[in-house]
Formats: sequence, C-alpha cells, structure tokens
Amino acid sequence: MRVYLDHNAGTPLDPKVLAAMSETLADMPGNPSSSHQFGRAARARLEQARAQVAALVKVQPRQVVFTSGGTEANNFALHAVSAQRPLGRLAVSAIEHPSVLEPARALAQAAGWSLDLIAADGEGRVSAQALQAALRPETRLVSVMLANNETGVLQPVAELAERARAAGVAMHTDAVQAAGKLEVDFEACGVQLMTLSAHKIYGPKGAGALIFDKSLEIAPLLHGGGQEHGLRAGTENIAAIVGFGVAAELAAERLGEQARLQRLRDQLQAQLQRHRQVTVFAANAPRLPNTLQFAVAGLDGETLLMQLDKAGIAVSSGSACASGSSEPSHVLLAMGVDAELARGAVRVSLGRDSTQADIDRLLAVLAEKIEWLNQAAQVAGW
Amino acid sequence: MRVYLDHNAGTPLDPKVLAAMSETLADMPGNPSSSHQFGRAARARLEQARAQVAALVKVQPRQVVFTSGGTEANNFALHAVSAQRPLGRLAVSAIEHPSVLEPARALAQAAGWSLDLIAADGEGRVSAQALQAALRPETRLVSVMLANNETGVLQPVAELAERARAAGVAMHTDAVQAAGKLEVDFEACGVQLMTLSAHKIYGPKGAGALIFDKSLEIAPLLHGGGQEHGLRAGTENIAAIVGFGVAAELAAERLGEQARLQRLRDQLQAQLQRHRQVTVFAANAPRLPNTLQFAVAGLDGETLLMQLDKAGIAVSSGSACASGSSEPSHVLLAMGVDAELARGAVRVSLGRDSTQADIDRLLAVLAEKIEWLNQAAQVAGW
Repeated sequence: MRVYLDHNAGTPLDPKVLAAMSETLADMPGNPSSSHQFGRAARARLEQARAQVAALVKVQPRQVVFTSGGTEANNFALHAVSAQRPLGRLAVSAIEHPSVLEPARALAQAAGWSLDLIAADGEGRVSAQALQAALRPETRLVSVMLANNETGVLQPVAELAERARAAGVAMHTDAVQAAGKLEVDFEACGVQLMTLSAHKIYGPKGAGALIFDKSLEIAPLLHGGGQEHGLRAGTENIAAIVGFGVAAELAAERLGEQARLQRLRDQLQAQLQRHRQVTVFAANAPRLPNTLQFAVAGLDGETLLMQLDKAGIAVSSGSACASGSSEPSHVLLAMGVDAELARGAVRVSLGRDSTQADIDRLLAVLAEKIEWLNQAAQVAGW
Repeated sequence: MRVYLDHNAGTPLDPKVLAAMSETLADMPGNPSSSHQFGRAARARLEQARAQVAALVKVQPRQVVFTSGGTEANNFALHAVSAQRPLGRLAVSAIEHPSVLEPARALAQAAGWSLDLIAADGEGRVSAQALQAALRPETRLVSVMLANNETGVLQPVAELAERARAAGVAMHTDAVQAAGKLEVDFEACGVQLMTLSAHKIYGPKGAGALIFDKSLEIAPLLHGGGQEHGLRAGTENIAAIVGFGVAAELAAERLGEQARLQRLRDQLQAQLQRHRQVTVFAANAPRLPNTLQFAVAGLDGETLLMQLDKAGIAVSSGSACASGSSEPSHVLLAMGVDAELARGAVRVSLGRDSTQADIDRLLAVLAEKIEWLNQAAQVAGW
C-alpha cells in the first residue's frame, strides 16, 4: 500500500491536466512568438491558460506573467521591485519559503540592500504589530506568504497589506500553498505582487506565475525576447502553461472538496493529541485545511520519516526544498519552538486522493512507534 | 498542405520524447527533493536525464545545471560570472541572440558593467581579430555563440576561446542552435560555460541547461532550495527534463541525418540564387546544414511571411523572439547588410520531418511572388 501524504511538496497530475498537456505536446511545434499559423495556434492556447489562471485569483489576464515555477516567481517579485527602486530595506517574514528568504539574503549580501525579518508569534502568525515594528523609512518591499508551507498557518495578509500601503511600501505575497486550498482574491489581499505555482494544485512542475498590480512598475528578471509583454523572456513552456490553466480552472471548481480533507486532518490531529508525547504545531491558529505538522518528543523527524517511508507512507519533515538537511525548520525556530523538538517535525499534507484508509494506516504506524518509545522509556526508567 | 520550415524557432516533439514525458507526467507525483520513495523515483529519472544531456556535449553529469530553457541559461551564464567578479566589462558578439544581448545590456544599464560588442564580418563571422580588438584589461567574460540562429553561420569558438584564455577571461558560448545539428564537444570548444535548449532538438519547451567547467566558480541566478547543487533553486521540471534527456540521446544518434537536410538546403539555395533579386546571406560562410536566410529585393519580409503563411508554409523573418517587430535583424545589420534589404529577410530552417515536397512547395510559391515582382517592375518600367 502506497500512501502519499506530501501534497504540499507536490501533487499528482490531474487526469484532465494530463490530457490537455498530452494534446499540446503532441500537436504544437510552433513557437508562440512566431506569426505563422503554428505560432498563432500556440499563442491561442497560451492566452486561454492565462485567462484561466487569472480567474483563479480574480484578476485580468494581462496581470499574469508566466514563469518556470514558484521559485522563479518569488525571485522575480523581489527583483521586480528592488531593481526599480533606490537601494533600501526589504522586510520579509522569518517564516517565508527559502525561495523568498534566499533571494532577499542575496540582495542583502551582493547588492547593498538591507534585510529586516518580520517576527512570527508562537502560533506561527505574522501580526500587523510585528510588521509595523519591522518597517523603516527606507523599506521598499514587504513579503509575507498567504499560508505557510510547513505549519499551514494562514497569515493576515489583507491586514498586513493595509499597513504596508499606509507606509507607502509595495507588498508581495507567496500564495503557492494557499491557492487551490482556499479562495484567493488578489484585490482583496491588497498586495501588488502574488506568486502562484502549478504543481501544488494538480498541475505540472515547471509552471508558475507572478500576478502584478498594473500600477506597479516592475523590472524583468530574465531578459531577452519580448515574451510576456517584455516582462519574462524565454520561449513559453506551452504544455506546462496549458496544464497550469486547466489545473487553475479545476482548483476553483473544487474548493468545496477541502471540507473533507479538513475532517480527515482534524481526526488525525485529535488521534495524535491523545499521545502525551505529541506536539501539534500551531494547533490553535487558522490553518490550511489539509496540513498538519507535529513532532513526537524523543523521536527524530528524519528517522521517523525513513520508518514511515519503509511502511510505504510518504510525508515530509517540512519543506521538501530543505529535506536531507539536519537543520531544524527555520519556521519552527522562528515560532520559538525548542530546537530539539523542531528536529522531530513531521508534516502531513493531504490531497484530493487522500482517504480515510491513508489516515488509519498512518495512525497505526505512528502508534506503533510511540508505543515502542513508551516501552523503551519504561525499561530505561525515564 | 502544412509545411513547417521554422525548426530553428521550435521543433515538433519526437514521439519517443513524448512517450517518456507522458509516462513521467502520469506517474511521478514526487518532488525530487523529497527523501521518500516518490521523491527518490523522481530523482532517479532526473539523474538519468542529466547523464543523457551530459553525453551530448561530452561532459560529466555534474557539469550540467538544468534550467527552464535557453534564455534562462544565457541570463544565468552572464549572472554566474558577473556576480562573482569585480565590476568590469563584458565582451559580447554583436550577433548574439537577444537572450545574451539583453541581459548584457541590463548589466550595463543597472549594475555598473560596461559592454563591448564584438564585430562580425560581412559573412556573419566573429573573427579572433575582432575579439582581440574588443578585449580590455577589465574584460571579465566573453560570449560568442556556436552557430547563429538567423544565418546559421558557425563561429570559430575554439579559436576565440584560446584568445580569451590567453587574456585570462572566462568564455561562454550559446550552443542552442548548434547542438543536435553538429557534433558539440564542450572540452574541445575550450569555453567555461555553454547553453543548451531542449526544444530545438525535438525535446519540449521549458527545459535547457547551463554546462559549466568545474574550475569556474559560479553564482546562482535563482535562489531558494538547494536544488541542482545549490546552483539553481526551484522544483525541477521533471517531465520536461526527462524529455530533454531522451531528446539529447536521440540527437547524438541522429547527427548523420543532417547530410540529407544539407542537400535539401543546398538545392533550395541553388534554385533561389537563379533569381537575380535574391540575396542569400552568408552564403560563403560555414553554416548549419539546415539553415538558409535570404531576401528578395523589393519584397518586404513580413509581407512575404504572411503570404507564405496563407499558402500553408511556416518560415520566419529571423528570430521568433523578435517577430512582429518591424526592426531589421540586428544580425544582418551587424554584417553590414543594407537596412532595406535586411527588412526583406526570410529564414528557412529545415528539420528531420522536412521533405523534398516541402522545398518544392516553398520554391513554387516563392517563384510566383518573384514572377509577380518582375511583371510589376516591367509595367512600372523599373
């Protein structure tokens, strides 16, 4: 039995997405920049996908710039603003994904920018007060994610954006984990830049988007041909973008399915919390319906992951982008979690293919491990 | 009858590439950064593709960094070196693709770098003398392509690399158009950086690579997770990369097929040259076997393109990345071609699906247009 509970790292492709991509791959030699019939056919598919992605976050198609994924879009967002403004400061939440934190650090190390980390509280929330405390007169850009990839905690982005706007600072939000799991409305968020990714919403790896407010002047990260209205050079990855479009349309239609995932998640959480050794992180914060991060005191996260993997269960120790690393999660550390407990972190992220049987299987294997721990403790007289 | 003669802009997907990609898309939910079975399965496919791409240009797999395409790899190459060196000068040939010229201009405009354009001669060649004339003590990077995308002219990269090396300057070559059309050996080229793209060799759009010499320290362009040994963050586009790998393997096996394309191209050229109004650009230079660029004096290139398109024939006015623009080709202008003649430029690029019938059809339609031109000239008493 293979149990895949790592949907925040990547989702399987929806069959409808696969069908649309296969058709595009097989029958689309044209470069969408070419003016002949083959080029026009490719362009038409590209623009259809742009409208589908725009609809997911309720913007106009021309506010969508396609990228190679969420990481490029996050790098692009920071570059888009920093390259247009005088040197200054970036205010980035301490719990951002590495694809926001690392380009911010690179701007600080190599390009003369200064970086202020916005603190998160013990429940993994970035408050308006914390943002206010990080803002300086030279702050040019704020970046706070809509939902955290590890804990699943939702951030009060609209409220934060109001503070940023009052201070005259542009704001970006990484909505990669939120999109498809809850309704995301770009205008209602009040931000000027938003990142989306296809492969977290049953679309393909290799496609993402930066959504932008038309009042914001932005600088391209990739230079070359005039693709994407001069904002992102490079022949468009038509097949992946077509898949992204279909996935975006399906995601909007299927938001209702999240209630079932939340019931499964809540049930998993309740069962885990019956063990005194288990800590569920950010248990009291508003969270994504599909995500649960916990640790078992005394069990190392990477070891537990390997044991679960042997039992056919795929979960994560946090971000897939940092897996294999023995460093405790920067998200949990920012929440004030003890480093040793943080090393035990396991993230379970459900998806539309997740079943009651998956949860039962995970609970059974975890109960075994915890029971083993209890017996070992008794023997040792802990 | 649909006649596709724009393979330098994009090739149809090879059926074997499509099959490998479809399998990967359908059965690969895992993120290759994840340590569980799903992640390991994805990683294994990724590394297989890396070995296949490495073999195409005779390097070790660890010298391959996958990107979202040729444009990203070219931007990356310029950034990789400029971010590691003190401010200085870039020497870039005047006939480079926009994805080299534009990031070089952006570095010059925004980051304090200076840009020297290396001249091309009337046959579209960049000579060692021209490079030597462009080198300055502060030159940090040279970039000259292996084969030009418009004229098809091959550049003496090994000779140029020797001059660069003698001057202690790193060298990059854009091999996007050369790979798959002629044997490309990274070591023999003598460069430190090389760009490849999948969708010019019957692979998918959305995958490319930067090949690097291990002695060169390079800075990432995209920051975030530790993918690609920390050199290119972002979840890998597994399906496209798998397709790239298969395409690279097939390209190496099929180099012998180019002889047939060259015969077709030479025949097309001979027929065209029988018309006194036709100029074939760089006719006497060593060129890619599949490429022919010409102009008919008195016929506007974009208009001719549209007429050919109506007849079901897809060709290009030069780079697809600049199509729709009324500016004459920067490549032809750099060769000293008169701007009016350059506006007439039409590029024909053959591929493995090209047939004698395609060439006959193109020649028939072109002969009609030229005949019409002759009659108009007679009537007007030109």
